[in-house]
Parts: sequence; structure tokens; C-alpha cells
Amino acid sequence: MKTELYFDNAATTRTAAEAAEAILDMLTIHYGNPSSLHYKGLEAQTRMDKARRQVSGLLGCQPERLTFTSGATEANNLVIFGAAAARKRQGSQIITTAFEHSSVLEPCRQLEKEGFEIIWIKPDPNGRIHAEDIIEAVTEKTVLISCMMVNNELGTILPIEEIVKGVRRKKKDVFVHTDAVQALGKLPFRLSRLDVDAVSISAHKIHGPKGIGALYLREGSRILPRTFGGEQEKRLRPGTENSAYIVGFGAACELMQKNSGVYMEQIRQCNLRLRELLAENSGVVFHSPEDALPSVLNISIPGIRSEIMLHFLEQKGICVSSGSACSKGAKSHALAALGLSDLEIDSALRISFSHENTLEQVEILSNAVEEGQRTLLSQRRKGKL
Amino acid sequence: MKTELYFDNAATTRTAAEAAEAILDMLTIHYGNPSSLHYKGLEAQTRMDKARRQVSGLLGCQPERLTFTSGATEANNLVIFGAAAARKRQGSQIITTAFEHSSVLEPCRQLEKEGFEIIWIKPDPNGRIHAEDIIEAVTEKTVLISCMMVNNELGTILPIEEIVKGVRRKKKDVFVHTDAVQALGKLPFRLSRLDVDAVSISAHKIHGPKGIGALYLREGSRILPRTFGGEQEKRLRPGTENSAYIVGFGAACELMQKNSGVYMEQIRQCNLRLRELLAENSGVVFHSPEDALPSVLNISIPGIRSEIMLHFLEQKGICVSSGSACSKGAKSHALAALGLSDLEIDSALRISFSHENTLEQVEILSNAVEEGQRTLLSQRRKGKL
Repeated sequence: MKTELYFDNAATTRTAAEAAEAILDMLTIHYGNPSSLHYKGLEAQTRMDKARRQVSGLLGCQPERLTFTSGATEANNLVIFGAAAARKRQGSQIITTAFEHSSVLEPCRQLEKEGFEIIWIKPDPNGRIHAEDIIEAVTEKTVLISCMMVNNELGTILPIEEIVKGVRRKKKDVFVHTDAVQALGKLPFRLSRLDVDAVSISAHKIHGPKGIGALYLREGSRILPRTFGGEQEKRLRPGTENSAYIVGFGAACELMQKNSGVYMEQIRQCNLRLRELLAENSGVVFHSPEDALPSVLNISIPGIRSEIMLHFLEQKGICVSSGSACSKGAKSHALAALGLSDLEIDSALRISFSHENTLEQVEILSNAVEEGQRTLLSQRRKGKL
Repeated sequence: MKTELYFDNAATTRTAAEAAEAILDMLTIHYGNPSSLHYKGLEAQTRMDKARRQVSGLLGCQPERLTFTSGATEANNLVIFGAAAARKRQGSQIITTAFEHSSVLEPCRQLEKEGFEIIWIKPDPNGRIHAEDIIEAVTEKTVLISCMMVNNELGTILPIEEIVKGVRRKKKDVFVHTDAVQALGKLPFRLSRLDVDAVSISAHKIHGPKGIGALYLREGSRILPRTFGGEQEKRLRPGTENSAYIVGFGAACELMQKNSGVYMEQIRQCNLRLRELLAENSGVVFHSPEDALPSVLNISIPGIRSEIMLHFLEQKGICVSSGSACSKGAKSHALAALGLSDLEIDSALRISFSHENTLEQVEILSNAVEEGQRTLLSQRRKGKL
């Protein structure tokens, strides 16, 4: 039995025990349909209300501004299509970045087919988006800007506050959305200062379950619904509520709010130590800039294809990623947007931390990468790879 | 502490212990992202594959024909909008019934606004849909028929097989969808004989969790996706899979497949006994016909508003419903479609069974209804209500 060394926390995290217990309790005891008028419905509704307060507490908004969805993909689709549909008479230009998550990129591409003009802002070679590039792109026709808070493959932090300020100066009523999936609980931000219209978040990146997320919508920021049915979530997202996961999401947010400082310090230590250790290895190229969020460290080991190294590490019980999990081995569009060479992209590894990782695990990882490098490069020289 | 007497199983059911345990296991142990290339991803993927076989086993289809969604509301929206969008050049007429679930009704109303003509087939006063009414409505312009298998408020069984046969004789290539949420595991049907293009199902009506459902799509029956992002579910429904609930859904389906005979016999006994007991009470009007699926019994107690009786029963620990949970106390469109009087609609109660109900519970329910009737009618006479 190999030890589990999980360094793929940007793909998903283990559900925290507190969240899992809360979910179990909802499934088997407080299982009523929250819309039911009897006490079993009320039991579920009350717990869901508490969870909404827990999630909004972490996000820093009023509970009633949240709409629960089946995850960030649904939240991103809802807000992008919903905001575009509500504004199609006002203009047809959308600005986004070239390295958004696929659940933002693909809806934008879809809108492009439907007649919208999409401006794709590129990151610089260090993975940074410059606020002025977005601000300059704003025209009279711009109706929607969608810009992630932290890039999922690199950890780079986007200057949302600066972007919004500049955009609002130029055109006050642009609908601004940010995908905060990788930022939630890790990058302190205050919605009251951010001045955005909408924020997407997901539970499973912060030790909640996979299959629940939420969209924050500022009061007065109108979008059109995409799903039609019952009256749940103020008709913006009908369907019997996933009461158990909403409660689990709440529990995960409360944990994060209580412990974020300690968790992030642990993550920072792990990232720093790994950078130190890998820096001694001349065969490693760092893609994540030093000021990236420490939860993600993207590197390349030129000469060794990502999957080869990934499977070498896997045999030692170590899980890392070759890129975003959603793309399942496809070439990273995020790294390509940085202008990296194919050699670097094909050998990229994303190491992503959680507070559950330890410095000891980091040393094992670093040693394993070095061993992999030696072994695999030597096999390659011998023509075995 | 009151005893829990839960007779609202058409709204939702308690998650079976086996399903809940499987979910817990996925959340805390096999928590990998199924799209991840390492062993934690594979662990999740393997279990999800097994679950897909369990669900397709109960439904009687090939596993790869299923697309998991966040529930039946999403499945119904996906198939109705998706099938209409894929066929809008072939015709613009849609046929459905007047007492579908709101997640079918509302997408149809939405399509009506977008230019589709919707033919709403009415049930007869006994809550039966006549196949010939649907078949007669088919024209050259008909592209989509959506017709539920079992009505959620009455339990009436719709003649899907007869409908499809007649429709196909008249126009072979109409896309036929059935919402089988209330039928799954309760009404034996074989997809191979049904000849439909698509079927929606949900886990939480068969002791699985709330927040997971699936759409069966026959091979070659094309619909357009509504959500865009990663490559999950063959791009028809992107987003990190809810691997835990998929596995829980699988467990619930396996339980249902193994025990359906026993479960349904228990439900039949409960329904029969309640009918017998209530038939002695001249103040009760039965809305569900005798050949309805025994899982639902809809009655009225004219003179007592549904919510008043519901709360009277609630004080005795008994949960029943005044209609569909999704409509949360709004006037039932299904009962209105039957042509019932407002007096009957406003006093309707939906009692819905699970195999967890007992004959003893049924007697308590019947006595409580009678007591409620006496108490509440007497209070009304005294002007207290």
C-alpha cells in the first residue's frame, strides 16, 4: 500500500470530514424537499439557509445574492449567456482573457457563433494580465467582461480591482464577471470593494463536494435564466435543491473562513520549500511567477513529457497534474497563451497544494521529480522512451 | 419527540443507507477528479463507470447512452431545448400534455415565446391522457413530443407505448421524450420496446440523493448541448462530474432493481389499505384513478384547505403534500387541467408512498385525516377558521 501524496488540489480536493458529516446528516435524516410545506421541508430549508449564510460569509456578500448551481461550470455558463442575453440590444462586444477556464472560454466561443464579438486578452510571457490591456479594449459596444481572479493552471493573480476601476471610468454599465473558483478562501478579497456584478465559486476546490457551486449576483445586476421549471433559487436556477451539498458547501466555507490564515501559511510554506528544492535542479523551468497564489506551482522539465513524469510519480503514490483536469491531457491553452514553446507545454506539470500537504511530502515530491528526471532521461537516451 | 410518518415520497425520499455510505466513501476516500490522469482520478472514474452500469441496468439501456445531470429539471431542459434547437429547420410544432412537471411545461412556454407552436393535450376528468389525442395532433410540422410516463400529482400512467407507436406510424422521425421520474423503479418498462428518443430520470425519487439525474438518449437521436466547457459527459454536459452522487445514484438503482417487486408490493398494500379506510369516509373525494401507479394517492377533503389539513397532520408527525413540492403551495396546474373545481383543488392532498411505509402508519394516517376533518370542520362551523 503506497502512501497517498496528493498534489492536485487545483483539480479537486478531499471533502473535509465536517462537510462530509453534514452531507450524510442531510441525506439520511433531514432529507425533506426544501420546498415541502411540512416540517421535513422546513428542517432542510433551515439548514440550507444557514449554509447560504456560511457561503456568503466567506464571500463577503448578502446571503440572498447567492444562487446555488451544480458547480462553477454551470455558474459560468449561466452568467455569461444570461448577461449577454439580457444586454444584446445594448451591444455585442465581450472582453475576456485567453486563459480563462474552459467553462468561460467555450460559452464565449458559442456567443461568437451567435454574432458577438469576443476580444481575447492575452497574458504576458509571465502569465500576467495587464489591466490596461482590458481597459483599452473597452468600447461603446462592450457589454460584458469576464476575467478570472486567479488562473487555474499558473496561480497568477489577475488585477481585478484595477480592471474594474478602469473599466467603470470608461463605461460605467459594463457587466463585469469574475470566476473566483481558484481564489475563494485563498486570496483575500472584499466584494464590497471589488465593484463586480457577478462572481462564480465552487465547493470542491475548498474541501467541499464536487457538484455544487454558486453565482453571486449584485443587486440590480440582471441576467436572464437558462433553466426553467419550479420556483427554486428565485427561478434563476429551478430544480429541487441539492440541500445536502449546499449544507456541505456551507460547512466547507465556514472551515475556510475560520482557518484560512493557517491553511494559507501551510500552503505558502510548502510552495516556498518546493521552489527552493527545485531551484537547485537546473533541469526545471518555472512557469508560475513568484507572486502567483502559492496554491499552484507550474513547472516544466523539458525533455520529459508531462504524462510520462505524471505516471512515474504516480507509482510513488504522488498525484500531480499535467494541466487543467477538465482538458484531460489535451494541450494546455493557458500555457499556449503565454507563448511557451511546445517543448515546455508538453512537459508541464501543475503541482497544487492544500493545507493537508506537509513539508515532508514536499521533500518526497522533490526527490521523486529528480529521480524521475534521472531515470526517464536516461531511458530516453537509451531509446526506451 | 413525535414519530416521523413520511408520506411525501413523490416530493423526495430518504437516501438509502447503502447509497449514503457509497457517497461518503467517494467524498472522503475516492475524492479524485474523474478527469485526472493519476490513480485518484482513475479510482473515481472506475466507480463512476460501475454506477453508470447500475443506472443503465435499471433503465434497460446501454451505459454510454446516459448523460448525468444535476437532476431531472436539468435533464428536461437539456432535452427539450436541445431537441428543439437541433430541429428548428424541420418544423416548429411541439406536443406535450397540460399536466407535465414544471420543468417540461416552462421550457415549452419559453419555446412558445421563441416562435414554436405548443399543442397542450389535456387529460380527461379522471386524469388520463388518451393516446389518440396526441397522435391526432401530429402534423408535418411536429418535431418534438414530450409526455411524462407517470403523473407526479395523480400517479396516472400515460400510454407511452401506444402514443409512440401511433406517432411513428404518422411521422417516423418525431423526437419523442418521456419524463420517467415518477415511473423509474416503480413501473416496469423496457426501453427497447418503448421506441422513445429520450428519457429523463432522477435519483432522489428512488432513495438516491437530491441533485443528480440523467438523460437517456437513443443512439443517433441528436440534441444540441446547452452548457459549454470541459469534455465531461461527451461534451453534452460539461463540468466536473458529481462522482459521489453518481455512485450514490448507482447504488440506489441497484437496490431498486433487486427489490423492486418487494418494494412495489409494500406500496400497493399501503395504497389499497388507505383507499379502503378512506372510502368509509364520505367526506373524501379520490382524484387518482384506481389504475394509477400505487405510489401516489391524490384526494380532496372538500371544505378543508390543503394547507390547514397539512399542518394538522404535521403536528402528528405526518408529512403529506398539497401538490407538487416545486410549486410550493401554488394552485395545482395538474388538477386544474383535470377540470376540477377550485373547492376540490384547494383541498387536495397528495399522499405518496415508499416501501418504508407500513400498514400501521397508513392506519395512523387515516385516523388522523378523520380526526382532522372532524376538528377542522367543527372549528370552521364555530367560525374559528
